[in-house]
Amino acid sequence: MMPCLVPKWPAWLFCWRAACIQGASVRQRMWAELSRIPGLVGPRGAWGTSPLIRRGSSSASSRAPEVTLTPERYPVRRLPFSVVSEDDLATLEQIVPGRVITDPEELEAPNVDWLRTVRGSSKVLLRPRTTQEVAHILRYCHERNLAVNPQGGNTGMVGGSTPVFDEIILSTALMNQVLSFHDVSGVLVCQAGCILEALSQYVEERGFVMPLDLGAKGSCHIGGNVATNAGGLRFLRYGSLRGTVLGLEVVLADGTVLNCLTSLRKDNTGYDLKQLFIGSEGTLGVITAVSILCPPKPSAVNVAFLGCPGFAEVLQTFRTCRAMLGEILSAFEFMDAECMKLVRFHLGLSCPVQESPFYVLVETAGSGPQHDAEKLGHFLEQVLDSGLVTDGTLGSNERRIRMLWALRERITEALSHDGYVYKYDLSLPLDRLYDLVDDLRVRLGPSAKRVVGYGHLGDGNLHLNVTAETFCASLLGALEPYVYEWTAGQWGSVSAEHGLGFKKKDVLGYSKPPEALQLMRQVKALLDPKGILNPYKTLPTHA
Amino acid sequence: MMPCLVPKWPAWLFCWRAACIQGASVRQRMWAELSRIPGLVGPRGAWGTSPLIRRGSSSASSRAPEVTLTPERYPVRRLPFSVVSEDDLATLEQIVPGRVITDPEELEAPNVDWLRTVRGSSKVLLRPRTTQEVAHILRYCHERNLAVNPQGGNTGMVGGSTPVFDEIILSTALMNQVLSFHDVSGVLVCQAGCILEALSQYVEERGFVMPLDLGAKGSCHIGGNVATNAGGLRFLRYGSLRGTVLGLEVVLADGTVLNCLTSLRKDNTGYDLKQLFIGSEGTLGVITAVSILCPPKPSAVNVAFLGCPGFAEVLQTFRTCRAMLGEILSAFEFMDAECMKLVRFHLGLSCPVQESPFYVLVETAGSGPQHDAEKLGHFLEQVLDSGLVTDGTLGSNERRIRMLWALRERITEALSHDGYVYKYDLSLPLDRLYDLVDDLRVRLGPSAKRVVGYGHLGDGNLHLNVTAETFCASLLGALEPYVYEWTAGQWGSVSAEHGLGFKKKDVLGYSKPPEALQLMRQVKALLDPKGILNPYKTLPTHA
Repeated sequence: MMPCLVPKWPAWLFCWRAACIQGASVRQRMWAELSRIPGLVGPRGAWGTSPLIRRGSSSASSRAPEVTLTPERYPVRRLPFSVVSEDDLATLEQIVPGRVITDPEELEAPNVDWLRTVRGSSKVLLRPRTTQEVAHILRYCHERNLAVNPQGGNTGMVGGSTPVFDEIILSTALMNQVLSFHDVSGVLVCQAGCILEALSQYVEERGFVMPLDLGAKGSCHIGGNVATNAGGLRFLRYGSLRGTVLGLEVVLADGTVLNCLTSLRKDNTGYDLKQLFIGSEGTLGVITAVSILCPPKPSAVNVAFLGCPGFAEVLQTFRTCRAMLGEILSAFEFMDAECMKLVRFHLGLSCPVQESPFYVLVETAGSGPQHDAEKLGHFLEQVLDSGLVTDGTLGSNERRIRMLWALRERITEALSHDGYVYKYDLSLPLDRLYDLVDDLRVRLGPSAKRVVGYGHLGDGNLHLNVTAETFCASLLGALEPYVYEWTAGQWGSVSAEHGLGFKKKDVLGYSKPPEALQLMRQVKALLDPKGILNPYKTLPTHA
Repeated sequence: MMPCLVPKWPAWLFCWRAACIQGASVRQRMWAELSRIPGLVGPRGAWGTSPLIRRGSSSASSRAPEVTLTPERYPVRRLPFSVVSEDDLATLEQIVPGRVITDPEELEAPNVDWLRTVRGSSKVLLRPRTTQEVAHILRYCHERNLAVNPQGGNTGMVGGSTPVFDEIILSTALMNQVLSFHDVSGVLVCQAGCILEALSQYVEERGFVMPLDLGAKGSCHIGGNVATNAGGLRFLRYGSLRGTVLGLEVVLADGTVLNCLTSLRKDNTGYDLKQLFIGSEGTLGVITAVSILCPPKPSAVNVAFLGCPGFAEVLQTFRTCRAMLGEILSAFEFMDAECMKLVRFHLGLSCPVQESPFYVLVETAGSGPQHDAEKLGHFLEQVLDSGLVTDGTLGSNERRIRMLWALRERITEALSHDGYVYKYDLSLPLDRLYDLVDDLRVRLGPSAKRVVGYGHLGDGNLHLNVTAETFCASLLGALEPYVYEWTAGQWGSVSAEHGLGFKKKDVLGYSKPPEALQLMRQVKALLDPKGILNPYKTLPTHA
């Protein structure tokens, strides 16, 4: 029995791309201009999952209300760094001539995160083009004790990419050159400011895919992805950046260039220093170039979008899926009914299957179209017959696949339309993954507008989001530390893939023991003794 | 056309297992006894590739000639550590009662590496069972300034696991308990002294496989594998340990226990400290427990053993293979005709295909037996028809697969019978991978007995080995620094997967810039300020 595998797309859904483009904000336009230099521009991935929008397009509109300055909302004190002087500006102008930005209007967007939850007051943004320029900048800032906020696409979720006070913003936007690509090994070497989607397009034209993919692909920079240790949608298949990043070039706090930009799959010569910088959110060094292993592009991609009657059935569908699809399984995502309501209400997307308490998106990617379709067919038959899945629809051409993915990928965007969003990105044991969502609905009652759960089920990664009309301290009090304590009680992680940045730095202790915190502080002191790199981020304020 | 895919195994080949077991040495028996406690013993993997022997069984025989003391062969001076006193022994006896070994006969084997190239003069070996015992030992040694040599299965290739002088040997042999296994996620948590093959058997019985496999599996410990960042035979499929190791418990030089033993696929809370210890060869901390992600056991495994007329054809076979087998390709190994002569001459194995200049072993592992066989069949047809491959044989049952793998896996063992072996483990660009072997044959002429090349072609990893009747300084002079300079000229790595240990530590500079060496020294000083952990290893003697 294979019911309801016919697509059910309303015609208007085909128009959403145009709507997004028309709705592009001032901020988005500014960044688009920044990319308009010779180099890698015009991102749009070909394999499967492009949302075709850029973060910030909806929420960072020039008509949106002012974002509160970070030090006014959060208890944080400026550290005794120097203040940028006229002499400093003159020197910086010599280092990056014509690329020292001090116009307050141009500085508005890079001072605010795309979620519009934090806002710095930086007066200077620098746009280096080369590693040597970055080295020169950092050497000078180190000598002068000037704090620096490295910034890629500014698409982070935890306030890690915007200044907190007046840190100099060091943008990688003009560092967007591909340095080399090897079409047998699939090793890509590029500057840190290349936009992920542009890289996807570049390697797909050559028969490969990027080993990572995420909703912010249209704006995020590969250097920022690596600095965040971004997870995303292909993690299940291609694993962590810790395995796929082969080399890095990094500029240290004092301007020293650390060239570990090898293209070797295996290299056991000494300590693997690049690992220090993966996931350190720009607090230990500024990543200037990345060498990354791209897997061959699969010749067949299929997506199934399924409705499940309960979370137990979602889990059982995952087990069945892994057993029956094996090596061709490339993503297993889930979303609850509330998420579906959100994308319908705010973005006008419609549910392609019968309404269900839970939805699952399964993607396969393989080298044998017929074999893959056969495996997927058997799997669907099995889960439909056994009642694990009540309804489903399939996509195998690019447009259909994009549409099905949009339902999952655009939840974040839909949430940002729903009011103030309290975001949690947790790793939890699979069996308990959704219990916290149910629990919070009871705990918060009507004080929350919505409590939703979705995420990368195959990786044990729950995105838990709570919305309210506006920021509300009492709701925050009901959420925190409760959510963190609940997670710690399950030996989970309070930040699965988003990092800690500014907003989550003080909860590190819920997932790491004091001995680890102590060693992290020592590592920070070793690499950045003056603490000028992305201050107020990653490590907790108090010991 | 599908010629010659019929097996050609001589009957005597079936007997080799018995021969190996009969030939087991005193040393091997001793270590076997060490494992005979409640816990994980009796290693023998089920999936495909077990060589069914333990390293040391042939070369570390009690009848073998004495190994020269390391300080007599290499220019190395003892650092001013304390010497173990009677008081120290009494204290250590309190920490690990009955497990302080001082009997010179028992200390003979752990003082010598399995290749019999280096030999320390340690007077004490400790066998802790728990992390707390390790912590207690290190705290004491740190206070007393006693040097410590952590030791797993002592199967390393670069003298990293044996003492250089009189360091206390800290053996993980009794730390061999599985702590937990999750049969949905496949996450295994175990003590560091578990033998890899025993773990393989354990997880295979539960429907999973270890993400790494290597020739020394019958002896090596998982803690040592992680400390070395071992590569091996499944690297091509499952990637680096940096991606598959989810958590570590480590005891630092001063006895602090660093518990980062999480079982989460994603955890971006602060710096990923465990990465510091992966591949640091016991010089930054002692790994006491490991959490590792095991992939589901493939339901179909096939091996093809092929003969190729030249190295260009080997490379082209690899390209074809990757394109046609895609996600089911799990290994692509190569060996030259000299390697085949070695395994035939010293181990009595016979070539299962027509004699050729090169041989290739292709393994597939997938979830659809029929699909996989079909893909493999098409691939073989293609490479045979196009002349890339001149002859081939297939294995799909466990015994046949083991036999085919033995030809590749037992080369190291065969080499150890051939005389003194100069071993190089290099990462090189695929196109130039074999040029160095040809080049050396010309350069060395008759001064070398044999120059052979084999390795993990799919990972760009060449094992280059040169044999001579005995150690010869002039041959070494012809090899070094020539091999390292040649490799550095190709931006290769002078240690792809074996690490640097004692024997390769001074060549680190060929693959890493001075800035990296400087930072490595700083990291070492931060984590082990007295330098008591595995001294004389990994970092070069001189700045």
